[in-house]
Amino acid sequence: MPRHKTSLAKKIGLPPGTLLHTGLSRETVPELTVISYDAEQVAERKISPGELSTFRERTGITWLHVKGTYHVPTIEVIGEAFGLHPLVLEDILTPGQRPKLEDYGEYSFFVLMSHTMVDGCLVSEQVSIVLGGDYVLSFQDEHSDLFKPVVERLLNAKGRMRKFGPDYLAYSLIDMVVDHFFGVLEHMGEFIETIEQEVVANPQPSVLHNIHELKTQMLFLRKAVWPLRELIGALERGQLPLFRESTLLYVRDVYDHTAQVIETLEMYREMVSGLLDVYLSSLSNKMNEVIKMLTILSTLFMPLTFVVGLYGMNFKYMPELEWEWGYPVVLSVLGVMTCLMLWFFRRRRWI
Amino acid sequence: MPRHKTSLAKKIGLPPGTLLHTGLSRETVPELTVISYDAEQVAERKISPGELSTFRERTGITWLHVKGTYHVPTIEVIGEAFGLHPLVLEDILTPGQRPKLEDYGEYSFFVLMSHTMVDGCLVSEQVSIVLGGDYVLSFQDEHSDLFKPVVERLLNAKGRMRKFGPDYLAYSLIDMVVDHFFGVLEHMGEFIETIEQEVVANPQPSVLHNIHELKTQMLFLRKAVWPLRELIGALERGQLPLFRESTLLYVRDVYDHTAQVIETLEMYREMVSGLLDVYLSSLSNKMNEVIKMLTILSTLFMPLTFVVGLYGMNFKYMPELEWEWGYPVVLSVLGVMTCLMLWFFRRRRWI
Amino acid sequence: MPRHKTSLAKKIGLPPGTLLHTGLSRETVPELTVISYDAEQVAERKISPGELSTFRERTGITWLHVKGTYHVPTIEVIGEAFGLHPLVLEDILTPGQRPKLEDYGEYSFFVLMSHTMVDGCLVSEQVSIVLGGDYVLSFQDEHSDLFKPVVERLLNAKGRMRKFGPDYLAYSLIDMVVDHFFGVLEHMGEFIETIEQEVVANPQPSVLHNIHELKTQMLFLRKAVWPLRELIGALERGQLPLFRESTLLYVRDVYDHTAQVIETLEMYREMVSGLLDVYLSSLSNKMNEVIKMLTILSTLFMPLTFVVGLYGMNFKYMPELEWEWGYPVVLSVLGVMTCLMLWFFRRRRWI
Amino acid sequence: MPRHKTSLAKKIGLPPGTLLHTGLSRETVPELTVISYDAEQVAERKISPGELSTFRERTGITWLHVKGTYHVPTIEVIGEAFGLHPLVLEDILTPGQRPKLEDYGEYSFFVLMSHTMVDGCLVSEQVSIVLGGDYVLSFQDEHSDLFKPVVERLLNAKGRMRKFGPDYLAYSLIDMVVDHFFGVLEHMGEFIETIEQEVVANPQPSVLHNIHELKTQMLFLRKAVWPLRELIGALERGQLPLFRESTLLYVRDVYDHTAQVIETLEMYREMVSGLLDVYLSSLSNKMNEVIKMLTILSTLFMPLTFVVGLYGMNFKYMPELEWEWGYPVVLSVLGVMTCLMLWFFRRRRWI
Amino acid sequence: MPRHKTSLAKKIGLPPGTLLHTGLSRETVPELTVISYDAEQVAERKISPGELSTFRERTGITWLHVKGTYHVPTIEVIGEAFGLHPLVLEDILTPGQRPKLEDYGEYSFFVLMSHTMVDGCLVSEQVSIVLGGDYVLSFQDEHSDLFKPVVERLLNAKGRMRKFGPDYLAYSLIDMVVDHFFGVLEHMGEFIETIEQEVVANPQPSVLHNIHELKTQMLFLRKAVWPLRELIGALERGQLPLFRESTLLYVRDVYDHTAQVIETLEMYREMVSGLLDVYLSSLSNKMNEVIKMLTILSTLFMPLTFVVGLYGMNFKYMPELEWEWGYPVVLSVLGVMTCLMLWFFRRRRWI
Ligand SMILES: [Mg+2]
Ligand SMILES: [Mg+2]
Ligand SMILES: [Mg+2]
Ligand SMILES: [Mg+2]
Ligand SMILES: [Mg+2]
Ligand SMILES: [Mg+2]
Ligand SMILES: [Mg+2]
Ligand SMILES: [Mg+2]
Ligand SMILES: [Mg+2]
Ligand SMILES: [Mg+2]
Ligand SMILES: [Mg+2]
Ligand SMILES: [Mg+2]
Ligand SMILES: [Mg+2]
Ligand SMILES: [Mg+2]
Ligand SMILES: [Mg+2]
Ligand SMILES: [Mg+2]
Ligand SMILES: [Mg+2]
Ligand SMILES: [Mg+2]
Ligand SMILES: [Mg+2]
Ligand SMILES: [Mg+2]
Ligand SMILES: [Mg+2]
Ligand SMILES: [Mg+2]
Ligand SMILES: [Mg+2]
Ligand SMILES: [Mg+2]
Ligand SMILES: [Mg+2]
Ligand SMILES: [Mg+2]
Ligand SMILES: [Mg+2]
Ligand SMILES: [Mg+2]
Ligand SMILES: [Mg+2]
Ligand SMILES: [Mg+2]
Repeated sequence: MPRHKTSLAKKIGLPPGTLLHTGLSRETVPELTVISYDAEQVAERKISPGELSTFRERTGITWLHVKGTYHVPTIEVIGEAFGLHPLVLEDILTPGQRPKLEDYGEYSFFVLMSHTMVDGCLVSEQVSIVLGGDYVLSFQDEHSDLFKPVVERLLNAKGRMRKFGPDYLAYSLIDMVVDHFFGVLEHMGEFIETIEQEVVANPQPSVLHNIHELKTQMLFLRKAVWPLRELIGALERGQLPLFRESTLLYVRDVYDHTAQVIETLEMYREMVSGLLDVYLSSLSNKMNEVIKMLTILSTLFMPLTFVVGLYGMNFKYMPELEWEWGYPVVLSVLGVMTCLMLWFFRRRRWI
Repeated sequence: MPRHKTSLAKKIGLPPGTLLHTGLSRETVPELTVISYDAEQVAERKISPGELSTFRERTGITWLHVKGTYHVPTIEVIGEAFGLHPLVLEDILTPGQRPKLEDYGEYSFFVLMSHTMVDGCLVSEQVSIVLGGDYVLSFQDEHSDLFKPVVERLLNAKGRMRKFGPDYLAYSLIDMVVDHFFGVLEHMGEFIETIEQEVVANPQPSVLHNIHELKTQMLFLRKAVWPLRELIGALERGQLPLFRESTLLYVRDVYDHTAQVIETLEMYREMVSGLLDVYLSSLSNKMNEVIKMLTILSTLFMPLTFVVGLYGMNFKYMPELEWEWGYPVVLSVLGVMTCLMLWFFRRRRWI
Repeated sequence: MPRHKTSLAKKIGLPPGTLLHTGLSRETVPELTVISYDAEQVAERKISPGELSTFRERTGITWLHVKGTYHVPTIEVIGEAFGLHPLVLEDILTPGQRPKLEDYGEYSFFVLMSHTMVDGCLVSEQVSIVLGGDYVLSFQDEHSDLFKPVVERLLNAKGRMRKFGPDYLAYSLIDMVVDHFFGVLEHMGEFIETIEQEVVANPQPSVLHNIHELKTQMLFLRKAVWPLRELIGALERGQLPLFRESTLLYVRDVYDHTAQVIETLEMYREMVSGLLDVYLSSLSNKMNEVIKMLTILSTLFMPLTFVVGLYGMNFKYMPELEWEWGYPVVLSVLGVMTCLMLWFFRRRRWI
Repeated sequence: MPRHKTSLAKKIGLPPGTLLHTGLSRETVPELTVISYDAEQVAERKISPGELSTFRERTGITWLHVKGTYHVPTIEVIGEAFGLHPLVLEDILTPGQRPKLEDYGEYSFFVLMSHTMVDGCLVSEQVSIVLGGDYVLSFQDEHSDLFKPVVERLLNAKGRMRKFGPDYLAYSLIDMVVDHFFGVLEHMGEFIETIEQEVVANPQPSVLHNIHELKTQMLFLRKAVWPLRELIGALERGQLPLFRESTLLYVRDVYDHTAQVIETLEMYREMVSGLLDVYLSSLSNKMNEVIKMLTILSTLFMPLTFVVGLYGMNFKYMPELEWEWGYPVVLSVLGVMTCLMLWFFRRRRWI
Repeated sequence: MPRHKTSLAKKIGLPPGTLLHTGLSRETVPELTVISYDAEQVAERKISPGELSTFRERTGITWLHVKGTYHVPTIEVIGEAFGLHPLVLEDILTPGQRPKLEDYGEYSFFVLMSHTMVDGCLVSEQVSIVLGGDYVLSFQDEHSDLFKPVVERLLNAKGRMRKFGPDYLAYSLIDMVVDHFFGVLEHMGEFIETIEQEVVANPQPSVLHNIHELKTQMLFLRKAVWPLRELIGALERGQLPLFRESTLLYVRDVYDHTAQVIETLEMYREMVSGLLDVYLSSLSNKMNEVIKMLTILSTLFMPLTFVVGLYGMNFKYMPELEWEWGYPVVLSVLGVMTCLMLWFFRRRRWI
């Protein structure tokens, strides 16, 4: 289960703004990509942290994208170059944050939790975005290709996206994160249908395990999406001066999608909860069937066994034993008893 | 189960406003109907997308109704003719949207989810409505006759409805969608009564399946109605300048109906949830009955079988076996034991 | 079960304000009573619809009470005489409305759902009230004596109630409806106590049926009372200009009662839900008892039966069978086994 | 169970403000105590209703405390002496009111539900308080010593409490009522711990009854406390002009306590609900144990009994029966079968 | 279970502001530490209550930290020295308060509930903080090292923290309390994973006990955290004039952490609730298995036992007994019956 734990327990007692990476430690180096663009031109370059300062002076819009947030010195250099508050840097370095939006005046800070399906597995990573007057910084925990479509649209398109400001770029990144939730929901919806068929056709104990796993995943998803809606709702109400009027139409669109994600998720939660009820009931039904079979069997054979035991007694004076027709009569009696009982069960609709 | 899936997963990474039909693909051609009317006259014509531009210049009110939203070029032509935003066109082309109301200044955009009973099956389709200053555009996914009564009222009536503006027409379409929910609820109410009788009379495992199916349908209905109430509530509070004061009385009426749909639906949900409890309890009751029967039977026959087994032993020196009255005495003892046990069960009210 | 169905499904596609009675059809004629009063005098008369117009010109306060809302022409005549909006007349004619309060400027329109206990049965009917500047119109679906106490207070009292305006009369009618809920709640409370005793003393499957019935009734009651509180709350906050300051003290009193009805109802709901848990647990307990008895019995007799079967074998060389003391020894062994097992069960507190 | 029923059902159809006692009827006479005090002096007297009018003219603060609210004439006399509204008198006479706060301009009216533990039993009674400019009236249903500590503080203290106004006295009475809830909660907490130990150690059916009883008591408590918090919250927000600024600090304190009562109560509710789950699970566990025992037993003895039955057959030609070692061999086979099965159960961890 | 009981039951009837310690009584003496600091210097001293008055006159910021709140005279002396309201002193002396924030004008009063993991046990204690213009008072019930990291930062750091005002110190103490919740949550998360594995691998009754314990702990945690979030939210909205603008950024950070604690806690609650469902289902599954085994066994042996009983009868005229091939034929019949039944069970997938 992808339990992206909040590693804040490691920082108990440390002063706020302490820069310490609390996720898994890595050997690899973070990857920094800069895309500078305006309506006319666009350029992409991989850079090293040392080259950062030169970018602050450029005209046009600068997008710095960082893959891998585990390297403290890199984050510190970026923080200095763009004048970020230590609390911002701390949040970037601490995976498992709650999605939120913070306005620091000259720039705004977004934290999102992205969930994607990679080869049938649910992968979650924290995405941090800093939106300034003429720049966007984005950070993702892993080296995944989460924002590849945005990069491509920026580089390849006939410049439509490049005509908008950095707020539109920030919107596009948020939109990308929300889009991926639909992929996860589609996967979940298919899984629910599979479980539905299993529960009805052949309820196995493994169903229970699948339901539990699904429920836990939904809880994590929920924890990521509810604050995200809050965040985008605040954007839509115009609480961020850096977002222009023209971009807000698009924000309204992505807000709508977030609402849809939440409502679908809550519906799935209720459906899965209903499946558990169905599973438990079908367990009860199966037990009823088994016990009914046991009872039918006992009802049939116990009297028969008693009768044959009766004539197995060794009393000297048992007239029936001497009769020539004793054995056939007993056999007939046993047959009639069996028929009567079968008829009784049939009438009760047990068989 | 009519799972009208959100097909937004197909659009991950595409820029907002990308016109791509995400529903099932069709061979047929969308059907465009134009009704132009004012207080004095009314005219209905089926048209092709090419003829659209001529209608923008007419006086009076123009209602363009489109059946089938799967044909991207048609939607694009309409979008150009009426100057609609790409996000609006995208929503029209994407079935499974969340019901919503968006104000674009010169026009307003409504998305609704319609649910109707067609031959005992629940059919859901997305309905999109654009309300302009002197026109109404309506789009439905399927070729159903959802809005036929409105068309007939417009054509046949003595002109009462034609005296009102386009806002009243938009209201009438929304009202039509809400009206159909009552048909669905009536069907569900009858189904619940059927299940109720089954559960009490003869609880079969199929009941469980029916309850689960019903619950899932209710979840889909719920997802369609709650945002609808929100939407109509916003209308009623006068948030849309295109709706005149005189129409708001009617909006209040349809708001009322939506509230009634929701409350009935929530009541049905609780009733169905209660039925599940009744079903599970009656399963338990039945199992109790069966096990009780097994126990009664064992209690009766185990001692009897022991006694006859006892006198089936082959010891040389067993005085009872020699007695002349041995057999009748044992028979009597067996009879008395049976009576005692029956009396015991009767006293415990087991039989 | 008194399922007062919303018959709005019959009106799908009809224009708003269509006057069509959707309840059960009747043969009888509606009963119209007019009470005209002011501080000095009071007069009561049964009238026919044709005489209505004369009453509009009288001075003092006019109360027109209509029993039976199934006769469309009568309602239409009243609507014309008092200038009521078609949507109001439609609501009056459609039983099963959601309780609500609508202000039409010159008059206000109330819809209430009344629930009363008549001979131990829960009877519900819709009550519609129109409050004008100097008149009150009231409509009830049935011919019950719901408002008899108000009529009597008006006719018999020394005129205290006649000194107040028509708003006080409207308040009195609403108060009457709320009062009857206490009768229903008292009945339910007693029924819950009965079920409580049954569940503890002798849990029968019928208990389950009673609980389910009660739960369904509560759902209907709930659907009637929650919007009623909303309605009276709006009155209390002074949203209706036709209600004078002096009457609002009384509205606060009836608001209080509605809150009490709701809280008692919700408490009863939780109590009944708890009773279901107790019932299910006692089912489990009973099954435990029965299975324990079966196990004790089998544990006692299976070994005994094995032993007597052992000495029922027909081997030629079985020394025990030849012993003189064989039989008594086996009998003693059987006795000791029995005692040991009884002691074992006693220690486990099974018997 | 102390079901303090709302007796409003007895008043259906009566005009508002009808003075009628709806609780249990009594033979005893209500007890009226008057305490007159100012910063310098204090005097306590038991009086009869007739002496009331003299007290209205005194200077200083007058506290009239009435034990027993079942005597209509007494309440009427008090109402006249202090000019109370009939609706106030009606509420005082009607036990089982919802806690509330009503401002009548010259005086304010409080209704509270007090719950106290008396000799291990939960006793609830309605407390009504009228706060005027220089007087406080308090009414309790029973003759309990609910307010004794307040009386003593007033009489014995060095005058600290006498320096404050009548609003502080009213606060002290409310505080007294809230204080007693902690006694009830402490008792409940201890009862929950007892049940917890029982459920784990030896789950008896009586546990179920205790849990149900506790749940019902909590529902009643809850119904009394939630509106009480609302009431005190309104006081704290300064909605009552008769409460001075200096007293509001104390009101904030009692508000805090009410919040604590509610949160503890809700926590207990969840704990009790969890105990029910534990109880039901332990029932299941016990049943599992019993059925496992039955199955082990049957598995052991059924094959053995079959084998001995086999050699109990009377066929003429059964070679084994003639063998000299037949009997010992069969005995050994039976022994080996038993050992195998015991080993099998041990491996499955059944024994 | 760490049930930090509200001991307010001991104070029923006492006047507000009565100083009485209601927790467990102690023999030890409270420990008073004073840290005086400004941007340049810092000094720490353990003092006795008598020395307090001298500290009020110092310049710079004074932090008085008190370990142990059970000694009334000490608290009284502090109250006098800093002019605290009796209600504040009462709250400090009463463990088990609800977390809250109260503004007394010249100073503000905070109550928090701290939960920490000490050697694998959950320890909770009340923390009270008084924030004045140039001083901070902090009180903790126990002698734990809760605030040690703050003390060290103050003494050892290069003075960064000493540059901020007393509001930052108060923030640091609150932050410390919130930090510790993450330690508790981490512990709980690990415990949940342990239970998860147990439930799937080998569901023992002890699991149930663990789940119940965990649920109860979560209830206590929840009761401490929800009001804490409210408190910090009020701080963040700037309701306290003593908190400077610059500190509010840090308050926003700790608010975020509290939200994260709450959401993680609620998620854990749902996960644990799901584990209970899994446990109950696996109990049902196990019972199904056992009963299935019993039924298979009975189905196999009952018919066999009947047949051998049949030929154990002692009738004189039973032709089969005389046949030479009787015994082998019967043995074959028994073998075939067994095979048929095994095939039947295999087909039903029972074995
Ligand atoms: Mg929603
Ligand atoms: Mg939810
Ligand atoms: Mg929701
Ligand atoms: Mg929900
Ligand atoms: Mg729900
Ligand atoms: Mg559920
Ligand atoms: Mg509702
Ligand atoms: Mg609901
Ligand atoms: Mg709802
Ligand atoms: Mg609801
Ligand atoms: Mg509910
Ligand atoms: Mg629920
Ligand atoms: Mg529910
Ligand atoms: Mg309430
Ligand atoms: Mg509710
Ligand atoms: Mg409620
Ligand atoms: Mg509630
Ligand atoms: Mg509840
Ligand atoms: Mg339930
Ligand atoms: Mg709370
Ligand atoms: Mg709560
Ligand atoms: Mg609650
Ligand atoms: Mg809760
Ligand atoms: Mg529960
Ligand atoms: Mg939340
Ligand atoms: Mg939450
Ligand atoms: Mg919650
Ligand atoms: Mg929640
Ligand atoms: Mg939940
Ligand atoms: Mg649950």
